[in-house]
Amino acid sequence: MQEHTVKAFDDELNALRATIAEMGGLTETAIDNAIKALSTHNLALAREVVAGDERIDELDAQIERLVVQTIALRAPMAHDLREIIAVLKISGTVERMADYAKNIAKRVETVTSSPIHLEPISLLPAMAQIVREMVKAALDAFAARDAKAALAVIERDRAVDDFYNSIFRTMVTFMMENQKMISESAHILFIAKNLERIGDHATNMAEMIHYVVTGAKPPEREKGTMIETGLED
Amino acid sequence: MQEHTVKAFDDELNALRATIAEMGGLTETAIDNAIKALSTHNLALAREVVAGDERIDELDAQIERLVVQTIALRAPMAHDLREIIAVLKISGTVERMADYAKNIAKRVETVTSSPIHLEPISLLPAMAQIVREMVKAALDAFAARDAKAALAVIERDRAVDDFYNSIFRTMVTFMMENQKMISESAHILFIAKNLERIGDHATNMAEMIHYVVTGAKPPEREKGTMIETGLED
Repeated sequence: MQEHTVKAFDDELNALRATIAEMGGLTETAIDNAIKALSTHNLALAREVVAGDERIDELDAQIERLVVQTIALRAPMAHDLREIIAVLKISGTVERMADYAKNIAKRVETVTSSPIHLEPISLLPAMAQIVREMVKAALDAFAARDAKAALAVIERDRAVDDFYNSIFRTMVTFMMENQKMISESAHILFIAKNLERIGDHATNMAEMIHYVVTGAKPPEREKGTMIETGLED
Repeated sequence: MQEHTVKAFDDELNALRATIAEMGGLTETAIDNAIKALSTHNLALAREVVAGDERIDELDAQIERLVVQTIALRAPMAHDLREIIAVLKISGTVERMADYAKNIAKRVETVTSSPIHLEPISLLPAMAQIVREMVKAALDAFAARDAKAALAVIERDRAVDDFYNSIFRTMVTFMMENQKMISESAHILFIAKNLERIGDHATNMAEMIHYVVTGAKPPEREKGTMIETGLED
């Protein structure tokens, strides 16, 4: 293992990693709770997710301050510097994923106002599960410096895209057959889109991690949503 | 003006700012061309936008390398360090805005496959115009270190949200009355959402710029999309 610039740098880097882990845990829970709130029509839980986003924003700001402070105090070189810049970028990515979870929770209120159950909602928990696992796996890969695990996350994005295409097709058919539910259906589409974007961000994170660990970009990935057939991006 | 750590740092910071300006210009053009391609059913122009995104990604990667190199070589302190970290974050933000422009361009192919004109498309150029102006204004505020100009960008986001709410309402009504156009309509909704997100990113950029210039966060802004009435986030 490469010797660090200064021993104190080790401590600061560990503090940063611990904060990323904390942010990551809160974000995975937010994704989970947002979809749970949707499926169970739980407005209180939805509001909890929205309120909880503030804490995640604070942690991101905290990480940025500590990164700047650490660079100023320790003047890290080469590998250490790239690592600490990666922490900054990962923090921003986790913060954005949490924002999407908050956006999903905000929509719960609009969807639950409808007295009729929207059958397509039942597709979302399975999609959310895959996405949550990707977030966790990416953060675990970061903590363990595991480039192979990072690659596995990138592969998983294909499943998320397939799910999204299914949901899009289902919703379009549903809207054609249920004109009164078009507005709520649009919200479901956006919720699915938000989940797909969280998956994208987890994939970006995995690519960053692969690069920091190996010094090389992972193999080019094919975005799997079906623009050509006119379905989705 | 604060004395810089080393004179060479000045040169590197200027090189970075020039690259941000180049990225910004390409991104503003991408937004403009994506919507133009949509309005004029120009598939070739849409493909140009998609292909052009690679250059913007390269510039972002170039900026990151130069930021890391500059920090390693010059060991900037305090204000200079915060400034160069801000360049890194702004670069990432511009790259994401360009991605949204690319996503809009990708959808042009799916929408133009429809033989019938979608009237609501006519609303998008005006919305795109506001968003482009915000991107330009935010980058100008960065170049000029103008906190007041940055605040003006943040204020403008309200107009984008209002536009988005209008388009959402219009599209829902349109979909109810034109069942055969539901799929294309969903794409229009997503295009409007992509524009709204570019506006959000321009606003985030303006907030970062305000913070770097003044050392303080701008006043809390109220997100103007109408979640409460069940319309949009």
